[in-house]
This record gives sequence, C-alpha cells and structure tokens, in this order.
Amino acid sequence: MNSFGRIFKVSLFGESHGDSIGVVIDGVPEGIALEREDFLFDIGRRAPGLKGTTARKESDEPVFLSGIYEGHTTGAPLAVVFRNENTRSGDYAQFDAMPRPGHADFVAAVKWDWENDPRGGGHFSGRLTLPIVAAGVVAKKVLEDIDIHAELIEVGGEKDASRWEALLEAAAQEGDSLGGIVECRVDNVPIGLGEPFFDSVESLISHAVFAMPGVRGIEFGDGFRAPRMKGSEHNDPFGPDGPAKNGAGGVNGGITNGAPIVFRVAVKPTSSIAKPQRTWNFKDKKMDTLSIKGRHDVCFALRTPVVIEALTALVLADLV
Amino acid sequence: MNSFGRIFKVSLFGESHGDSIGVVIDGVPEGIALEREDFLFDIGRRAPGLKGTTARKESDEPVFLSGIYEGHTTGAPLAVVFRNENTRSGDYAQFDAMPRPGHADFVAAVKWDWENDPRGGGHFSGRLTLPIVAAGVVAKKVLEDIDIHAELIEVGGEKDASRWEALLEAAAQEGDSLGGIVECRVDNVPIGLGEPFFDSVESLISHAVFAMPGVRGIEFGDGFRAPRMKGSEHNDPFGPDGPAKNGAGGVNGGITNGAPIVFRVAVKPTSSIAKPQRTWNFKDKKMDTLSIKGRHDVCFALRTPVVIEALTALVLADLV
Amino acid sequence: MNSFGRIFKVSLFGESHGDSIGVVIDGVPEGIALEREDFLFDIGRRAPGLKGTTARKESDEPVFLSGIYEGHTTGAPLAVVFRNENTRSGDYAQFDAMPRPGHADFVAAVKWDWENDPRGGGHFSGRLTLPIVAAGVVAKKVLEDIDIHAELIEVGGEKDASRWEALLEAAAQEGDSLGGIVECRVDNVPIGLGEPFFDSVESLISHAVFAMPGVRGIEFGDGFRAPRMKGSEHNDPFGPDGPAKNGAGGVNGGITNGAPIVFRVAVKPTSSIAKPQRTWNFKDKKMDTLSIKGRHDVCFALRTPVVIEALTALVLADLV
Amino acid sequence: MNSFGRIFKVSLFGESHGDSIGVVIDGVPEGIALEREDFLFDIGRRAPGLKGTTARKESDEPVFLSGIYEGHTTGAPLAVVFRNENTRSGDYAQFDAMPRPGHADFVAAVKWDWENDPRGGGHFSGRLTLPIVAAGVVAKKVLEDIDIHAELIEVGGEKDASRWEALLEAAAQEGDSLGGIVECRVDNVPIGLGEPFFDSVESLISHAVFAMPGVRGIEFGDGFRAPRMKGSEHNDPFGPDGPAKNGAGGVNGGITNGAPIVFRVAVKPTSSIAKPQRTWNFKDKKMDTLSIKGRHDVCFALRTPVVIEALTALVLADLV
Repeated sequence: MNSFGRIFKVSLFGESHGDSIGVVIDGVPEGIALEREDFLFDIGRRAPGLKGTTARKESDEPVFLSGIYEGHTTGAPLAVVFRNENTRSGDYAQFDAMPRPGHADFVAAVKWDWENDPRGGGHFSGRLTLPIVAAGVVAKKVLEDIDIHAELIEVGGEKDASRWEALLEAAAQEGDSLGGIVECRVDNVPIGLGEPFFDSVESLISHAVFAMPGVRGIEFGDGFRAPRMKGSEHNDPFGPDGPAKNGAGGVNGGITNGAPIVFRVAVKPTSSIAKPQRTWNFKDKKMDTLSIKGRHDVCFALRTPVVIEALTALVLADLV
Repeated sequence: MNSFGRIFKVSLFGESHGDSIGVVIDGVPEGIALEREDFLFDIGRRAPGLKGTTARKESDEPVFLSGIYEGHTTGAPLAVVFRNENTRSGDYAQFDAMPRPGHADFVAAVKWDWENDPRGGGHFSGRLTLPIVAAGVVAKKVLEDIDIHAELIEVGGEKDASRWEALLEAAAQEGDSLGGIVECRVDNVPIGLGEPFFDSVESLISHAVFAMPGVRGIEFGDGFRAPRMKGSEHNDPFGPDGPAKNGAGGVNGGITNGAPIVFRVAVKPTSSIAKPQRTWNFKDKKMDTLSIKGRHDVCFALRTPVVIEALTALVLADLV
Repeated sequence: MNSFGRIFKVSLFGESHGDSIGVVIDGVPEGIALEREDFLFDIGRRAPGLKGTTARKESDEPVFLSGIYEGHTTGAPLAVVFRNENTRSGDYAQFDAMPRPGHADFVAAVKWDWENDPRGGGHFSGRLTLPIVAAGVVAKKVLEDIDIHAELIEVGGEKDASRWEALLEAAAQEGDSLGGIVECRVDNVPIGLGEPFFDSVESLISHAVFAMPGVRGIEFGDGFRAPRMKGSEHNDPFGPDGPAKNGAGGVNGGITNGAPIVFRVAVKPTSSIAKPQRTWNFKDKKMDTLSIKGRHDVCFALRTPVVIEALTALVLADLV
Repeated sequence: MNSFGRIFKVSLFGESHGDSIGVVIDGVPEGIALEREDFLFDIGRRAPGLKGTTARKESDEPVFLSGIYEGHTTGAPLAVVFRNENTRSGDYAQFDAMPRPGHADFVAAVKWDWENDPRGGGHFSGRLTLPIVAAGVVAKKVLEDIDIHAELIEVGGEKDASRWEALLEAAAQEGDSLGGIVECRVDNVPIGLGEPFFDSVESLISHAVFAMPGVRGIEFGDGFRAPRMKGSEHNDPFGPDGPAKNGAGGVNGGITNGAPIVFRVAVKPTSSIAKPQRTWNFKDKKMDTLSIKGRHDVCFALRTPVVIEALTALVLADLV
C-alpha cells in the first residue's frame, strides 16, 4: 500500500506526467498554524537548480484541498496536491523496448501487466518525493521541539565538500552520475519512543527511508563499524547525562534512549545517464545500446537530505 | 505494536523469565503439512552450544496450541509457545541500579514506568527470537520454492572463517565480545513483489530485520559501496536473463526484479560482557563499576542467520 | 482514521465548503477500463433533484488526478476529486452558538477544539458521500459479476411507495423531515468470503455502513425478528441449492454461504429542519429557538441507496 | 484477520477441542493491577449453568503466559490462555455429511478446503468468546471510570423477565431454542471519541459486536424506530446538560456527544437443537434428517451480555 503511519498517516498518489501528484495526511492535530510559506523552504531544498541537479523546471506550488481553515489545521484529513507541468513525455517513448537499467520501468511493467503509466517513471518517479516533503513539513510542525537535520556528508566517495563541484562537473562531462551519503541527526528526542521488536525505531525509520527511491543501505550509530568493534568498545556506558558515545545511534532495544538519533543513508548514483549503455532490447530480443536523453540529475543525492528529514519526521510524528 | 504483516501476520509475546514465550500466526493457508520435526532444524540453528554462544540450556520445545489438526494447518490462527525453564533470575538483580550498557534495561524501565519485567531483559530478551524462528518455519513452508539462505560472512572484522574460533576464544578469555556480519540471499524470487514507496521490499525487509535486537545496519546489493560508484558502474543493464551484476540486490523501485534478493546485516558485539564497565549508578547517583555475571554469548551474531532468514520469510510470506 | 480497507483501500478527505473533496483509492487492480461516463450514473442517483431532496446544485463532476492512463487503471493509487461550488457559507454562521440538534456541529467543535471548519458541516458533511460513491464505482468494476442492489423500502414508516410523494410534500409543508429504511441485496456472492470473529462479513459491512452519516441500525437476514423466532424456525437447513430461507442473510459464522447477502439499514430523518427547535444557546447560556434556513433534504434517505451500495462494494472489493 | 484494534489490540486463537484457546493483548498500559480474581466474575457471567445454558463443564481457568509481573501489567503484550477439557469430540462426527443448519460447519469446510478442525465448531466455536471476555476484563480496567453494562431485555420475544424461565423450559421440552435481545449502555463517556466516517463509534462497536457468533442486528438510540419518526421528534436538542432524549444513542456524526452510548443487539436462537431437522446430506446427495445430540444452550443469548460488554470495552479502550 502506498501509505504509512498508524496515527499520523500519509497516503501518496500521482504519476510524474499525470494531472497531479499529492498526499493525504490523516491524523494531523487541530490548531497548527500552517500556510503556503511554511512549505516553500523545504520544497526549495528539494528543488533542482543546485549544481548537479536536473534543469527541469517543475511546478512546485502546493495547493491545499482540505484540512486547513483560517490558517490552521482543522483535525480533518489534510490534502495537498502539486500540478504537473513542463513535462516532455516524448523523452520516454523508447523505454518500452529498453527499460532503463537501474529504473523501475521493467518491474512496473511486469507487476502491472503493462498497464502502468510509463511516462517519466509514472508513479515510481522521484517527483513523488515532493508530496513527501510537504507531508514532512506538517510532521515537523507536529514535532515542535524535536529537531531533525540531514545533510550530505559524502559525494562520489569524497568527504571534502569543497571538491564536490569539480567532481560533479567531471561526471556531467562524461555523461555519468554520482552517488552520496546522507547523515541525519535528530535532537531533543524524548526517551521511550518506539516499541520492542517489530515497531522498533530503527524498523520504522528504515521502513520509511527505503521508501525513497535509490537508497541502498542504512546504518545507525556505529553502523557497519559496530561488527568490527569489541563489546567493551561498542558498549555505551551511561554517564550522568545519558549514553556517552552514542554508538547505538540513540536507540536501545528499539526504544529511544534520549541521545540524538543518528543514522546514515547510502544513496546510489543517478540511474539515468547520457553515456551509452549496453542492455537488453526486449522488443528485438537482442543486446542493444541505450542513450538516455532528457534532463537528469548528475547526483540526485544532493536533493535528498530534505526528503530523508521528511520521512524521519513522518515516523516520529506517528510515534509521539 | 508487537505484530508484523498484513496477510500473513505474526504477534509476538512473552518475557525471558516469565511463564512462556510464543507467537500467534494469523493468515496461514490451510492444508500445509506441519509437525514438530519441521521446527527442530531451524530451532537447533538458533540454539546455544556453538562456540561463542551462551551455555544456558533452554527449553526449546515447541508446543502447538491451535491451528493444526491431523498434521496440517487448518486456516485458523496458529499459536506456538515455548515454556521458560532453567532461568536464574537472581543474576539480574543488580541491574535496577545499573542498567546494562547497550541493553534495553534503561529504556524499558522509563518507557513502562518501572513496571516492566526486568528479569533476563524481560520482553526485550533475545530469547524472543525463538518464536520468530518458529514463525519463520511456517513462513518458509508457505513460500515453497523460494529459497532463503543466510550465513555469517564476518566475525570481529575477520572474513576468514577458519580464524573465527581463535578470535572467539581470545575474546572469551578477555571477558569481551565480538560482532559479525550476516549475508542473506533469496533465490527463485518472482518478479513484481513489493510496492512502490512505503511498501518497497527493502522497506519491509529492513523493518523486519531491525526487529532483531542488536542490528546496526542493513545494505542491499552494492550497499554502502554504491555511493562510491558511478552510475555507469552501479547500473545493472539487462542481459537476456535479467540484471547481470545485481548491484541493486534484486530490487528496483521497491519491486523484485527476478534476480536474487541479497542483503547484509551488521550485528553488534554482545552487550553483556564479563569485563568490568564504568557506568552510571542511578541509585547512588555516581559512576560505578559493573561486572556482568551469568551465561552470555561471546558473539550472538553466530546464532542470528536463522533469525534473519525467519524475518525475511515473514516479509515474503506476507507479499506472496 | 478516515480510511477503510486493507487491500482495496480508500482514504477520504475534504470539507463541504473547502476547495475540494475527494478520495484516494489504493490497491485498484491494473487494466480496468474506467472513464468519466462510468461515474455519472451512480453520481446521478445520489444527486439532489428527486422530490424531497435539497435544491443545492452541486458540482458533481469527477476529476481524476492519478491512477488512470489511456482509459485504464494503472495499478497505482487512483485519486478522484470534486470541486466545491455554489456554497452559501453564510447560512451556517449562527450554529457556533447553537449547534444544530442531530448534527455533528457540537462534537466536531469539542473534538477538534473549535479549530474545525464549521461551514456546511465541514468534514462531517453528507457531501463526503460523493467521493464514497465514486470509490464505489471503482469497487463495483473490481467485483465484476457480483451484483449489489440497494433500494428504499420504507419512507416515514410507509412501505407503499405510491404514497411517499404525498408524505414528503406534507413534511416539507410543515418544515419537518422524514427517515427511511434501505434494503441492500448482493447476488452472485462466492462462498467463503469473510473471516471468523473480527473480520466477519457482517462486521465489515456494518463498519462501512455506519460510516454514512445518519444511520441508526443495521440488520442481516431475519434481523431483529430472529430473537423472536425459535431455532427450528430461524435455522436454515440446506437444500440442494444451498440455504433455503436465507434468514441468516447470506452469512454463517461470519463467512458468506453462497446465498445472497441481505441487510436493511435504518436511516434517520434529516436533522436540518425549518421548523423552530428549542435548544441550548452555548453563547448566551440559556435555552433558545433555532430556525434552520437554507436548502436541505426533506428525506435524505432517498439519496442513500447508492451510497450503501458503494460502501458494500468497498467491503467486498477488499475481500475478493 | 482475527485481530481487532489499533492501539489496544487483541489477537484471538484456538479451537473448541484443540489444546487451548487464548488471546494476546498488545498495547496494555503498564502498571494496571491485575490478578486471577479480577477475571472470575466476568468469566462466571459467561459460564454455563444458568437455566437454559449448556451443561458442559468447561475449564474456564485463565493462565497468564506473559505481560504481568508482580501483580501488575508490564506494558508488554499480555497473553491469556484457557485449556480445553471435558470435550466429547465424538458428538460431532456426523456433521461432515450434514453440516448443522445455522452453523459455520459448511462455510468453514469450503473456505478452508476441508482442512479445518471440525470438532466442536473448531475455531468458529462460541467457546472463543471466553478469551474475548478475558480481554474485556483488561479493557475495562483501562477504561477506569467509563462504565459498561449490558443486560438481556427480551427472551423469545418476551420482555417480562419473570416469564423467561417458563419459556425456556417449554423450549427445552420441545428440543427447540430461543433468541434474545441485549441492551448495552455505557456511562461516563468523554465527549469526542470516534472519528468521522470510517472510524465512527457506531462503525467500531458494530464491527466488534458482529464478531460475536449469532448476532443478527444492532441499533443505536432510537434505532429502527428512527426512520418512522419525524425530524422534529427524533432530533435531540441540547439542554443545559447535553442531549435530552438521547435518540442518537450517545453519538453524533460518529463522535460521542457525552450522553450514554446505548445500543441493542439481536441474538438469534441457538442453532443446535435436538428437534430433528430436514437438511441436505452432502455425502449421499439427498435430503436427510439431522438430530443434534450433545449439550447445547437452549438460549445462548443468556450468556452474551458479558461478551457484548467485553467487545464494547475493546473498542473504547482502543479509542481512549
């Protein structure tokens, strides 16, 4: 199902080149001041225009269909939509025969028996992260003092941010693409959120984060370094102010321990590249060469920190 | 909530030193041949007794309360319980004042307002993975030809399995512990399982896997190496038999693509170590030294592959 | 939550006098031919214009935001909205002090701390049954051969339909209103739908039907006559073609038995009446007289059969 | 699924003649004093032994597997089981060929492809209402001041309770059975419980109540009399202390209005009767005569008020 949450619940809909995309948020507490301006900052952080992001100008103007009255949430479901404009569907015609490597073109067609909307990735498009960001804005309002901050800490394997621009330009020149790693940190977390086992905080956050297209891994605290540490190193004895090292990333036994929640997300390089790729032609039943035209991010990881913040906010708004 | 799944649904209950632990499985198809013997192999793989695992002899005998009639599932909910025996609750008395670093002692007490059962970790105990394994046995039966296999690929940072025994002995000598990395591979996966966005296969598997205590990270396919690859390297062009390199770990856009699902799980070193640890004494309100006695795994990661298989089976049985 | 269903899942949103009302339907199978014209018949059956229904002309034109491509469902979530027009919000100003008896004005205000949208009943408006009818059209398509038919069998206590017009006119003259009873019958039901206990067919249908504003009761088969029958009278022995009398209304033990599902729904008289009513003035803290102006149905039960069909279709589409 | 609730969540399991029946309750708040004695009163109200109820002596002793520690709930899932004893499975052998009219024998066999446990109705047995009553005891504790009281108001069409015994005896003599009507009333209900549309209080209560085997109808407040009233009669103007007449049964627009919730439930006559019945013999493919032996209630409605209280308590505990 394309929905998430039990109390604060979002339902996502839309296709990249359809009429609109949007989200219905159920369980929003009443009385939260909310206006168009609240959305623009986060929407702007996701927008293309940064170095290494697509040149497609999208209409990112939120339209509120319900749930807001006189500038405040009413308690009833809140629906936000975004119109699709400026689409060049012709760009996508050739992918029927040659589904783009790394994309959902192939699985969507098989799953939905070739009835799916193939234009621009259809329902699988990264454009659907726009309503996720909008839902995240509402969730952050619900969370009040809990502070969620995600940022890119690595691009193309490079940690030094001053070198990223050169890397991105080089990749663009080659018609190739880059990935990145995003770190997210949540401060002012109350102790006791989450449940043992199936609704552990890590379960819920990873569930939400893997909803973002292109994620390959997630790790909390010491993450994949933990298995290489000894218990005496990894263990996090309590100090007077809580866990000292936070190697657990703020969570013990699935429950928040009061320390900041810290996790990192591996984002793959953009799948759509100009560079010719040898792949199977399902129509002609032979290997063939695919050159993807159109406007694509060199490194869509640049646009993802705000999406990861939003997904994290959805989880926490549901738990609080 | 301590349940998982929408169609094939499991509900877990029990405490380490209570009467029993168990699981109710709803949505089991009728007519599956199922007997005690089917459970013993997987239960044995989870049992202590391997080098580096706890010496506690537990009663791991499954008792079927419902859902089986004349050796076959009936279609009604299936309940399996395991009696708790051979517990030495006295071992745990001191942890009221000094919650064990890395354990849920502290968060459980805060979350449940000091009403939780503290003995043996209570409901948070790793012993609860026993009914998970039992549910996994049922799920594997439902999956028929789909083959799930997990194995340990690294212990204490060491990939060469012939050196593990020495490492484990050394750690035991020091009163310390080790972690490990488990790789899980699912073969014969039909194309089209999973949903875009919130019910992506990675979302569901990571949700389930983080239900296991002590997991620090999960990665699919190329995982955390993907952000360091270029699109032309990471992309997985189709060959005549599907994706060739499987850097996506068998999933595109959240949907299985027919290639094996492959993921790796980072398991932390055991938290309970004999080695003295400096930690906060909540009673005396000062730093203090904690020495954990009792029988504990040097490396509980050794017992986890079958648990990870079970959790993966639960996800797939729910999707199929 | 304002959603229903586990596989075929609808999420409702909107307020009577807001921008739009609508529904997101998740889990629609791909490849179903669906166009605007398919919706007009059922929407027309719900529309005002019948004797005894409100004169408000509403824009009942469905707008499809997603989930349809080239005239067929895609498998992705389907969103349909209806714009609100022709609203006279001024009609509702006085209800702040004097919430209308029988309406949700009062409880909505308390529940949502006076942040709710009070115009036209806001989210509680009967206008929200319009997207329910739209969802029902989709559900009926999913159900194919299963045939759902609801009709009014009683108005103002009168079973003879030829006398209804006179009764309605008389009530309109008095500024009063009438209720009715709707009978719904589902033919060609496969044996075995539903689950024992909590997801019995009666549980699910009654859950859905009580979602319609103004329902006071529901009964299946012999209904409230059953407690007055002896077992030998009420029991429904099998004949060669299934249960003979169908006093169980097509359901045994929560599971469909192959006979038609038959149930009746008690619909209250319209709450908004022109006739002056003595009620509490919450502002002035005294009893006061309320005269409700505006356009209201004399008997909204006339418009409900298609809504009850839709709600029943949602349940069955989720079960099939 | 055999579970109910979102926050306070129960999962039911067991068969009448299997090892045990039971319930897992998730979401029980920690710190509620709870012991065996708390359960005995309500269990006793459901027990046979009253005039008109079955003579089968069942083991109704609750066994707590988890979730209670030192006499208080822990916050972890609470599992209660009841062993099955004193069963005479032989009584049920003949129903393979001739499923009992009014019972789930036939639909269970078709639904589960003849793999169901047929003994004593298997999972469909009324005995499963015993763990429901146990869950209700816990739910009532959660509800504290909210007071739920159900009682039988009619037996075999007779409202005067002093005549019931004679009616029951006469029916027993004839080998026949009687039904009844139960009225349930909830006092001290806070304003604002429930949601508009799909999670209306009536939706949830009716969902739960129809989980009890043998219910044919439910009505709130004026119920099936409402459609025969005029709006001016049925409407419930506010007085200084809330709605005066409570014709809505305590709910407006799906939300509690502070008045007592009042509803009535139609319970059918017991299906198992000694009187010979002509029914289809599925083995011999002809009409045949069925005489049901064994111990059965003349009027199981007598035992249902406590079950209806329990189901209502589950709904309210989930909403509060």
